[in-house]
Amino acid sequence: MLEHGGALKAAADRYDIALSDWLDLSTGINPLNWPVPTVPALIWQRLPEREDGLEKAAADYFGSAQLLAVAGSQAAIQALPALRRTSRVGVLSPGYAEHAHAWRRHGHAVALLSPDALAAAVGELDVLVVINPNNPTGTRVAATTLLEWRARLAERGGWLVVDEAFMDATPERSLAVHAGLPGLIILRSLGKFFGLAGARVGFVLAEAELRDRLQAQLGPWTVSGPGRWVATQALADRAWQQQTRASLPQASARLAGLLGRHSLAVSGGTALFQWLLHPQAEYFQDALARRGILVRRFDDPPSLRLGLPATEAAWRRLDLALAALRAERGTP
Amino acid sequence: MLEHGGALKAAADRYDIALSDWLDLSTGINPLNWPVPTVPALIWQRLPEREDGLEKAAADYFGSAQLLAVAGSQAAIQALPALRRTSRVGVLSPGYAEHAHAWRRHGHAVALLSPDALAAAVGELDVLVVINPNNPTGTRVAATTLLEWRARLAERGGWLVVDEAFMDATPERSLAVHAGLPGLIILRSLGKFFGLAGARVGFVLAEAELRDRLQAQLGPWTVSGPGRWVATQALADRAWQQQTRASLPQASARLAGLLGRHSLAVSGGTALFQWLLHPQAEYFQDALARRGILVRRFDDPPSLRLGLPATEAAWRRLDLALAALRAERGTP
Repeated sequence: MLEHGGALKAAADRYDIALSDWLDLSTGINPLNWPVPTVPALIWQRLPEREDGLEKAAADYFGSAQLLAVAGSQAAIQALPALRRTSRVGVLSPGYAEHAHAWRRHGHAVALLSPDALAAAVGELDVLVVINPNNPTGTRVAATTLLEWRARLAERGGWLVVDEAFMDATPERSLAVHAGLPGLIILRSLGKFFGLAGARVGFVLAEAELRDRLQAQLGPWTVSGPGRWVATQALADRAWQQQTRASLPQASARLAGLLGRHSLAVSGGTALFQWLLHPQAEYFQDALARRGILVRRFDDPPSLRLGLPATEAAWRRLDLALAALRAERGTP
Repeated sequence: MLEHGGALKAAADRYDIALSDWLDLSTGINPLNWPVPTVPALIWQRLPEREDGLEKAAADYFGSAQLLAVAGSQAAIQALPALRRTSRVGVLSPGYAEHAHAWRRHGHAVALLSPDALAAAVGELDVLVVINPNNPTGTRVAATTLLEWRARLAERGGWLVVDEAFMDATPERSLAVHAGLPGLIILRSLGKFFGLAGARVGFVLAEAELRDRLQAQLGPWTVSGPGRWVATQALADRAWQQQTRASLPQASARLAGLLGRHSLAVSGGTALFQWLLHPQAEYFQDALARRGILVRRFDDPPSLRLGLPATEAAWRRLDLALAALRAERGTP
């Protein structure tokens, strides 16, 4: 398994700062998550059943009923490579690293592709994996481009896998309404926009034959009853979604502005995080961690990803820490 | 995938009886489940992390730290067959059908073995799967016998898989304290005794090398944050466990007595269900369902499994229904 952000406990140990004293900006999870009510006892007790309303709520939300609920998109990332013979797989890079890892684990030949190299590679791949918008760079690929690649791949039995984990703030750019097209596989999650990463609920939107094979591979009851119950309500809560689609981009723009005022120009982002290339990424991660602020660092290329502060106190704390870093480094 | 008990909705449709009017005895789940408190918002929001106390609580509960948390024992049943080359696999039969199904799916040669045939078969198997106590027959195999089989299988790199889903009421008979012995794989679950089937939390107790391979196969974050949080507390609640270990066998004996008084002698059982062989199993299942009582039927051999009623009203309702069936059939 790969190492992941969110490992707050490790940082707490390493920097000897109590867990509760950290400002954790290391994830792209909405810190103002959908408010979860108390789960009824029967939902904990009984085996989760289909026809409890989740699939219907998800179909309304995505604009397509061609879907399968899974235990977070990670479950699909882990299982999809087992459903193909050894294939030539292209994966957008830099990008969420679990994709390449999972395909390699199953013996596929994986090529890491920069955004510019995707178009030229489509002709020589069996599977192309695009994270859209990309994590951590924020790069987007237009739906028309993706659909064209999908058609070319499908002609020879190939797949286009589109990881839309960060798409919920911009549903108009999603390929979900095209679900069911041959070879098109879309991954969605309730982890980021809804801020329910702990619930482990995601969806695979794809044609029926592939969903059936994936379901057989994963087995029954892979999503917990409480997870299904909570997701059903969150997906149906249009008022919360609308408000969140308005507030997240504002918060993300505020984060970009704050970083810019401290001479840290962002290189990309989404509604849920900002990303900045910086040769001293390691220094910044460490210097912020010494002040109890956890951000995510990437090494190739050296860069940082910052999620959204949740409260005014958190914004102030980040602002003060970045000011202190400027002083520490003698930057104007 | 196989069909399973617990499909109350299908019965509600078929018999045109509202969901809320059913007495569901079709599962072996404790109807008086561990009482779940409200889950904190942060547990829903954050990715589930290790070192949150679950593994420690489980190690204390099982008497062994050689464990891996999984999303219900079903997740392990589904994944274990992928970790071996094509093998000769013996599975106790009749028994929980997902075992044979999962091994067959991965191309292994599966032999269904009656309890009497197990001992003789060990010498010719690579993997032996024993459900102990067995579901639905209630058959038990002694720990000493299992350990002897384990040793013989391990000599040639084989596995003994012991599904202890119904073991929690009799922990003194568990093999958990022997976890770590080569080739020994024990499956546990919080679904039955704790009555938390919806939470999807189970454990694989086995040697470290196998746990590592299984973990890599399953990937990160397979158990939800709320599931981990609830399981941690349930596993630590010794007072509830002690009380439940006293009350469940009483309730199960009461169920056997009630069935006996209606000329339905039980053939086996555990603290959580009673099982009865009966040539008219299909009639009984249908006749009870017409009265809004759902029980589980098995065809080979024809038999019924009944879980425990939760309330005095439920006990009375079952009693009255069985009396009505006697009248309907003209049985004394």
